[in-house]
Amino acid sequence: MRVPDLIQKKRDGGQHTAEELRFLVQGYVDGQVPDYQVAAWLMAVFFKGMTAEETTHLTLAMAESGDMLDLSSLPHTVDKHSTGGVGDKTSLVLAPMLAALGLTVAKMSGRGLAHTGGTIDKLESIPGWSPVLSDEAFLNQAKEIGLSLVGQSKNLAPADGLLYALRDVTATVDCLPLIASSIMSKKLAAGAKTIVLDVKVGSGAFMKTLEDGQKLAEAMVNIGKLSGRNVRAVLTDMETPLGFMTGNTLEVLEAISTLQGQGPEDLRELCLALAKETLLAEGYSEAEAESRPRAVLQDGSALAKLKAFVASQGGDPRYIDDPSLFYVAEDKAEILAEQSGFVAHIEALKVGQALLVLGGGRETKGEAIDHSVGIELLKKIGDAVQAGEPIARIYHNQKGKDAAVQLVKEAVRVDSEKPAEVGLILGRVG
Amino acid sequence: MRVPDLIQKKRDGGQHTAEELRFLVQGYVDGQVPDYQVAAWLMAVFFKGMTAEETTHLTLAMAESGDMLDLSSLPHTVDKHSTGGVGDKTSLVLAPMLAALGLTVAKMSGRGLAHTGGTIDKLESIPGWSPVLSDEAFLNQAKEIGLSLVGQSKNLAPADGLLYALRDVTATVDCLPLIASSIMSKKLAAGAKTIVLDVKVGSGAFMKTLEDGQKLAEAMVNIGKLSGRNVRAVLTDMETPLGFMTGNTLEVLEAISTLQGQGPEDLRELCLALAKETLLAEGYSEAEAESRPRAVLQDGSALAKLKAFVASQGGDPRYIDDPSLFYVAEDKAEILAEQSGFVAHIEALKVGQALLVLGGGRETKGEAIDHSVGIELLKKIGDAVQAGEPIARIYHNQKGKDAAVQLVKEAVRVDSEKPAEVGLILGRVG
Repeated sequence: MRVPDLIQKKRDGGQHTAEELRFLVQGYVDGQVPDYQVAAWLMAVFFKGMTAEETTHLTLAMAESGDMLDLSSLPHTVDKHSTGGVGDKTSLVLAPMLAALGLTVAKMSGRGLAHTGGTIDKLESIPGWSPVLSDEAFLNQAKEIGLSLVGQSKNLAPADGLLYALRDVTATVDCLPLIASSIMSKKLAAGAKTIVLDVKVGSGAFMKTLEDGQKLAEAMVNIGKLSGRNVRAVLTDMETPLGFMTGNTLEVLEAISTLQGQGPEDLRELCLALAKETLLAEGYSEAEAESRPRAVLQDGSALAKLKAFVASQGGDPRYIDDPSLFYVAEDKAEILAEQSGFVAHIEALKVGQALLVLGGGRETKGEAIDHSVGIELLKKIGDAVQAGEPIARIYHNQKGKDAAVQLVKEAVRVDSEKPAEVGLILGRVG
Repeated sequence: MRVPDLIQKKRDGGQHTAEELRFLVQGYVDGQVPDYQVAAWLMAVFFKGMTAEETTHLTLAMAESGDMLDLSSLPHTVDKHSTGGVGDKTSLVLAPMLAALGLTVAKMSGRGLAHTGGTIDKLESIPGWSPVLSDEAFLNQAKEIGLSLVGQSKNLAPADGLLYALRDVTATVDCLPLIASSIMSKKLAAGAKTIVLDVKVGSGAFMKTLEDGQKLAEAMVNIGKLSGRNVRAVLTDMETPLGFMTGNTLEVLEAISTLQGQGPEDLRELCLALAKETLLAEGYSEAEAESRPRAVLQDGSALAKLKAFVASQGGDPRYIDDPSLFYVAEDKAEILAEQSGFVAHIEALKVGQALLVLGGGRETKGEAIDHSVGIELLKKIGDAVQAGEPIARIYHNQKGKDAAVQLVKEAVRVDSEKPAEVGLILGRVG
């Protein structure tokens, strides 16, 4: 097999075999296939696309380029993926819900970088909680509680990292089969049988239009079908932060509140939709998939799972029973509305950047972060607001306070007319 | 200027500015722009093409990546380029013709590699002749005789070598603007004001069809127009070796014979056509461009130019007056026709390979070659042949004899029917 022949095949609209894609991907990871050939091939893929079969073979080759988690000893393993976002604490709510529903969430998770937070960072707000478990403890805890969540200690789909870095500098990021295989390769390597995807759509997201989001969701669901996994996707609007809170401790507080049956409406709605999709994938009826997730929020069983999980990984369970124990930065700054009207838009990216300047996120890998700082929105899109009324509150430890205030000010736009309502859940595929 | 933005611009069908192309090309030569980005860009060019303006800017950027020969002190500088071929001794005939026509040929030429010969190698068959001249002697000789020909001592268009090597391994060779800019960048750097191109068309050539050849010729003529040079092109059929002789000394003998007003019809026809095109480019009338080249062959003035040129570069001029002085390998092997009929095809590539195995060409740079060996075709396409009649003669020094006989045997195909006649000159652009 000669690489230039493979590039030419794709260039001329040909269809790759599984062997060819494995040869390319493994060769690249091993350093046998140089990056300039992969770059030319990626551009040919950009123009000529890939069939569902090719995309699946590429995804499998990428998944198999590193460690493959073996979760086969666990029942009903499920995983959720979100294209991520600001204030997205969905995993903190959904994972205990799924465990309470009798499913198993055994997951490796990354840390946050730049303006997006990471689940591990958020959980470290709980004193004592550790993301480090032995392989055995990881599986045992998943078996007993239905929920283990550890830091990424394995080398999952290294081909994805390499390919993504190359795509980033060769204008080949915006390519559906490459995006789909990038996301799905890590999910396949992560081992769960059922995978539910939260595909964010909107100006701030990777997929700008509902149509593009739909296509990406379909491509990923197809990869699942062809590789023997249950994959379903929910398309959600993601222009503004989810819930009211952004910041590690603040988001844990909001997640606990949601698990107590309260919490912000958008977060609750998204978690219910994702749990429903997961149950449908697991073969439950529409009615059960609708009612059961509500029940585990209502009866406290999801909250109990969170508490058991936290305790099992060394965290202090009293914090779950009594969230007032959490330390939140005591210095506060309020942002006041400069005019009366309605909140028309809250730009998620700017809110994420505000957290960053407060010290609550990291710009480079390995940086320490301040869990206690954050931003609380006091208004959501569509809310009426009076000039001078507070619209957001910054919890800070002096660092970056002024810049954060400025960023949040810029993030919130107040208009004289009430904006049209946009639903959170835009569609589903599966 | 960010390279990913330039790649994306071309990917999305945008048109590059001169500055952008200079940035890319010079950055690549300087090692500032990595090959993987250039590879992705080349593939985007493959799909989206380039306008005549872009192609010209690319060509100029490539030409300016190294030394630019300054021939401005010389009158009527002309240069010929051929996509090359087996037995192509055109330059040996045409250059003295052009000098005799009052034009100036001051040229750097390469050595042969693989199955194609080089003009410098052929001229070195003449005892004493040297391809090394000082810059001053090079210009002075060109001024006095109208003809200097030296080995490539300057760094002409280094970007072309780099880009070609990258295209070769990324399936981006077959791309018209890239082919045109590759050829023309070296020609622009070589400094002549008038450039005549011999674009070979056929199964053995780079351009497989007349239509593709025409497009390439037009692209190169356009580059000439937009960069202030006179460029014209002749499209020629190149399926079989030109003339009867292949091999360094043998080709010099055939060139001398042509300059004596004899020589093979196809070689003579091609040289007349290229000389005519050159005179047209220089502003001569159709009638003059037609008659003058014939005259310099007829009256011996072109041959006299060759002799003066050879002597000026240290060669023994007696060899031009009396070609029987040349040493040709004395051992001969004849290839006999296995059946009666007509010569239907002579595959140039196989004849070139035969010369290689005889030691008359080089496989790797710097290898010494045997000037005295070669292949003489005794029949040309369309000739009638009787079974047992000699169709070709191998001049050898034992080395590679059997393999050469086999290759030439395979090269010549005899059919029962007379093949349709194909003209040598297929078209012209300019």
